[in-house]
Amino acid sequence: MMDEFEFIDSITQKYYRQSSVIKGIGDDAAILRHSYHDLVTAVDTMVDGVHFSKETVPPFYIGYRTLAANISDMAAMGAVPTSYMISLVVPKDYSNHELQAIYQGMDQLSRQYHMDLIGGDTVTGDQLVVSVTIHGVVDKDKARLRSHARDGDIVFVTGTLGDSRFGLGLLLDEYKRQPYNDQLDKIDRDFFIHRHQQPTPRVDFARDLTPLQRVALNDVSDGIASEANEIAKASQVTLIIDDDQVPVHPDMNILPDELIHDYKYSGGEDFELLGTVSTQDFPFVVEIARKHHLPLCQIGYVKDAEHTNQRVYLKQHDTLKRLKKTGYTHKN
Amino acid sequence: MMDEFEFIDSITQKYYRQSSVIKGIGDDAAILRHSYHDLVTAVDTMVDGVHFSKETVPPFYIGYRTLAANISDMAAMGAVPTSYMISLVVPKDYSNHELQAIYQGMDQLSRQYHMDLIGGDTVTGDQLVVSVTIHGVVDKDKARLRSHARDGDIVFVTGTLGDSRFGLGLLLDEYKRQPYNDQLDKIDRDFFIHRHQQPTPRVDFARDLTPLQRVALNDVSDGIASEANEIAKASQVTLIIDDDQVPVHPDMNILPDELIHDYKYSGGEDFELLGTVSTQDFPFVVEIARKHHLPLCQIGYVKDAEHTNQRVYLKQHDTLKRLKKTGYTHKN
Repeated sequence: MMDEFEFIDSITQKYYRQSSVIKGIGDDAAILRHSYHDLVTAVDTMVDGVHFSKETVPPFYIGYRTLAANISDMAAMGAVPTSYMISLVVPKDYSNHELQAIYQGMDQLSRQYHMDLIGGDTVTGDQLVVSVTIHGVVDKDKARLRSHARDGDIVFVTGTLGDSRFGLGLLLDEYKRQPYNDQLDKIDRDFFIHRHQQPTPRVDFARDLTPLQRVALNDVSDGIASEANEIAKASQVTLIIDDDQVPVHPDMNILPDELIHDYKYSGGEDFELLGTVSTQDFPFVVEIARKHHLPLCQIGYVKDAEHTNQRVYLKQHDTLKRLKKTGYTHKN
Repeated sequence: MMDEFEFIDSITQKYYRQSSVIKGIGDDAAILRHSYHDLVTAVDTMVDGVHFSKETVPPFYIGYRTLAANISDMAAMGAVPTSYMISLVVPKDYSNHELQAIYQGMDQLSRQYHMDLIGGDTVTGDQLVVSVTIHGVVDKDKARLRSHARDGDIVFVTGTLGDSRFGLGLLLDEYKRQPYNDQLDKIDRDFFIHRHQQPTPRVDFARDLTPLQRVALNDVSDGIASEANEIAKASQVTLIIDDDQVPVHPDMNILPDELIHDYKYSGGEDFELLGTVSTQDFPFVVEIARKHHLPLCQIGYVKDAEHTNQRVYLKQHDTLKRLKKTGYTHKN
């Protein structure tokens, strides 16, 4: 492995795209100047063997996906990503080529968003760990919090759900002993694999919602069962989700019903946005989605929590069951 | 191990000390508002078995030291730390008690600096990895960069050097087969062990230098040989350091000369500050150090690089040798 100094030199940008970067890589810390916006920041860590494996995700896509997950956090706040810092724990047997590939995966995505790499840390360890700290900006008091859902809101979601999990299954050849295995030739495999390896954070869509006073947003990292429960808890409301309206890609229908349920509610890592907005503002949300050619579905509504306190219910065949954060449904 | 949700609940602060924290833990990202200052940020990652081991550093001090290293980066920028985010990779066999102890070590130090914990991520892995992202603020255009050294500057350092490395050696019982081992009873062991486990970042001293227009600062994380070379390179100057003036604790003198040299130039992790300032401003620096009861020594001077390009020289017994970033000296 090349030493840390060489690696830092090799990834230091020749110029910074963002005027807010006063000092990037090359000192004890980076300096950012945001006088007119709020700064939004998050950290996301991925571990080899836990969040990805070299068999299903080549190094380039490890970088790409880790940064995409972070950018998705910015989208979920209604923020525009501006810069990031990488912290890598690298096993001794990891080659320079692989290390550079991780970086290149991040670099490709960061160029697309005009982001700057402003710092980082590379250390040796037993297991590959990729941790990214991201920064973004949002207009003052326009951040999209989980706590912003209100009684009567429409619950919506972008894109289709469970695609990333199905893509992983295809990469791992998980269905080879299943009766539906022979139908896998007929589906759009590349679509699902692309959704797993190169997810697209919904930054542009979220940014264009800025004129709205209030939107609750959460990105689909763990699965909408988990994200919907987070909104319910933070906003102290109840969410009712109509199973028939939750969007899945038509090719997913070759899978058994239980697997579809599992993938769409807790597959996760689709990096779509789950949100709530007033009925009055919903047409504007639909219009913005259309502008970005982004599928958007109304999947339910919000009501005051009362005694049923901060829960998510799933309407399925005219019965209402509790949807727990794991994706399991429960009678009460 | 308790699940991530429980852990996050257990470490979420009931209120935030900094008014700049608009949103802390509990959403997709944290929100900071710094309209009148520059924001300074860095990430530092420590790995079990590489940067610390449970034998020499109990979990409480693993937390304490990791955050101290980050706060020291803020001091080296002349910034005041305000908030931090933790990313932990935790082995399955790690107990809740140990996990909480890491956090408590950070919490104790963060209270002292009125800092807020505003985010984080806890994931499972094979090896303990503690990564901290820190934020601080500095007056606009008053950040203390490595590139600020100028011809004629005085080179100074705070505290004494090599203490942390000697403390580690005592903890590891590294000297038991050495002829000087029996003299170890006479020294202030607790001082060196404390310097290793609970280093004190020099934030207050650095902050009080704010009235000065220009100071170059670098914190002693790798050892002053490395830090001095970083300043020389970034400022494109030559640093001349006088070996006789580089401060070590008197108890260090029981060690052989070569070991003292090694510890003071490349022991590292003392988290003192190495700096350069004009001769005119040096008395002010001395006064501020005195105010904080912080030892401060002039250890050399800066001259223009000319053909000897961006190097550090060590004056030893009236000869001038090149001091490489590893701490080795070399004839040219």
